[in-house]
Amino acid sequence: MNIKTYGVILAGGGGTRFWPLSRKELPKQLLNLTGKDLMVNETIDRLEGNVAKENIFVVTNCTQVELMLEATAGRVLGDHVLAEPAARNTAACIGYAAMEILRKYGDGVMCVLPSDHYIKRVDVYRKVVAEAVRTAGETDALVTIGIQPTYPSTGYGYICHEEKKKDNGAYTVRRFVEKPNLEKAKEYLLSGDYLWNSGMFFWKASVIMRCFEEFLPEVYTCLQRIGEAMGTDAEQNVIEEVYPQIPKISIDYGIMERAEKVLVLEGDFGWSDVGSWDALEALYEKDEYGNITYGEQVHIDTHDCIVYAKNKLVTTIGLDNVIVVETEDAVLVCDKNRAQEVKKIVEALADCDKRQYL
Amino acid sequence: MNIKTYGVILAGGGGTRFWPLSRKELPKQLLNLTGKDLMVNETIDRLEGNVAKENIFVVTNCTQVELMLEATAGRVLGDHVLAEPAARNTAACIGYAAMEILRKYGDGVMCVLPSDHYIKRVDVYRKVVAEAVRTAGETDALVTIGIQPTYPSTGYGYICHEEKKKDNGAYTVRRFVEKPNLEKAKEYLLSGDYLWNSGMFFWKASVIMRCFEEFLPEVYTCLQRIGEAMGTDAEQNVIEEVYPQIPKISIDYGIMERAEKVLVLEGDFGWSDVGSWDALEALYEKDEYGNITYGEQVHIDTHDCIVYAKNKLVTTIGLDNVIVVETEDAVLVCDKNRAQEVKKIVEALADCDKRQYL
Repeated sequence: MNIKTYGVILAGGGGTRFWPLSRKELPKQLLNLTGKDLMVNETIDRLEGNVAKENIFVVTNCTQVELMLEATAGRVLGDHVLAEPAARNTAACIGYAAMEILRKYGDGVMCVLPSDHYIKRVDVYRKVVAEAVRTAGETDALVTIGIQPTYPSTGYGYICHEEKKKDNGAYTVRRFVEKPNLEKAKEYLLSGDYLWNSGMFFWKASVIMRCFEEFLPEVYTCLQRIGEAMGTDAEQNVIEEVYPQIPKISIDYGIMERAEKVLVLEGDFGWSDVGSWDALEALYEKDEYGNITYGEQVHIDTHDCIVYAKNKLVTTIGLDNVIVVETEDAVLVCDKNRAQEVKKIVEALADCDKRQYL
Repeated sequence: MNIKTYGVILAGGGGTRFWPLSRKELPKQLLNLTGKDLMVNETIDRLEGNVAKENIFVVTNCTQVELMLEATAGRVLGDHVLAEPAARNTAACIGYAAMEILRKYGDGVMCVLPSDHYIKRVDVYRKVVAEAVRTAGETDALVTIGIQPTYPSTGYGYICHEEKKKDNGAYTVRRFVEKPNLEKAKEYLLSGDYLWNSGMFFWKASVIMRCFEEFLPEVYTCLQRIGEAMGTDAEQNVIEEVYPQIPKISIDYGIMERAEKVLVLEGDFGWSDVGSWDALEALYEKDEYGNITYGEQVHIDTHDCIVYAKNKLVTTIGLDNVIVVETEDAVLVCDKNRAQEVKKIVEALADCDKRQYL
């Protein structure tokens, strides 16, 4: 079998969890949180050896497309950066990319990847991705990578799988599970049958398109209209008209939980979705006081803090487990155990007429 | 008796305790911490009714004199802003002002006042000052105001006085006491014979000059040399040459603790030396969550904090008893119980080659 492999990087998310560094038009995928490169570029480069450069696509939002083109120039072909006219959740943008691939480039295995996750052991990751591509190509299954859980996380969704692996090294998925409470999470961890849902999916474009037809006929109808216009003068107009009408649904709810042939491969490569400021602890070495620091700072008796100073000198006295973030126009000081609540600040700013900070 | 009254406002201190708002060349007295006016101007205006405007002097450091002239223009005559060529502690600058007054304006009662303290009940303050001026004029004593202590402060020096008031309503001072530990402070509070040392002094210029001659002869010799040059073309040159040679000693150590005729009047007018960021709690009403806030901010579940935002939006989540200060080039986040340690940050900045922040 000699089938093409495509990379489809989902990079349309807005930025609230890393506020004040991330903004509506500068979301996490366009930040350099690792100190190495923008997260989207790290995601692209991580596919080296798995996907040829010219087969990589990025799906983003029209409000971010200029920044995305600039950021990924030299890595991704300009016409491979697909701009959604409106955010319609993951089913829509995956369907759009699948249609683009089928109509313009021919069927192949799509590696659908979030653009803003961190992976520590890239070599291990590449092996698992190669395995996932092979499996998707050979079996016509929907294949995903489940992350070997290392603690009872209540911040991730889980994938429950059959006890025994199949011959091809993958497990059959029993069901997808919402973010659990701590008690449930501990059960999952002990059972050995649960993996974290990484949001990485592998399937043939033709296979996922058949799933749209079967499970999301409304979405499918919209995708068909867009597909028919592809390559014609009407393409852009049709996309702008039809795309915003696509029902908002995630690929997880819309297809993964309904499809029959879903396989999961175990991944154990130091993964984090970098979901909030405290997740930086997975990315950086702490200093001798347990602090993670970026930028110019002076500390007195400060422990287990995360301090990010973009422009100014940041100084602390007697702090423990506090996150301090300083950017051009805003400062955040947050109990480290409450980093999840940063989005509440963003909501409050939207509510109280401080939209310039969004 | 018809003797003149002079105001002598000591405004030469450097700024470390309110860093990053206060700086070497923008000390506390030039800040508006009350939301009303610069502290030095509040000090000047507070003398209304006690001292005629044209009899008010400000002693400052040569590095601050331009800012001080600008700040006090319209309140203080330009030639009444005296610039020390070097900081030589309080004995030197009080002696300098006394000599200036004696040589150029004639003897009178000097009201020597710190420029950076807060007083809540100005009407009460004015009555006590009038009493102190009268007492100093009638008795040739060194008169000070001791603050009725309201809690066992370990941050203030104390004045121990005789049990019974004299006929003129003042107590004779037994001794000046250093900042005590908490145990001692509690004893002082219970005994009823201790007042806080406010650093406000009242005496005739001629009387304090005789004290310099008796207790600080080296300082006196320098003052004499400066005095002889006053009004001549050599004045500025002599000041610049001699002043930096004056021994560095405080008026408390040098004279107050040694002089025999020292009286203290009780003051109970809501006084604070505003010695550190946490002292703002004495100046401002707290909001319903116990916070004191200045500038643009958004809080989630934040209590008993002091948040000063000069330029940027400051946001907090889940903080208790924390001070957050944001200025043009620096941010401070400090445990409220450790506000005294802000000067350690300033020391650390001096040590680690970050002098631009001093």
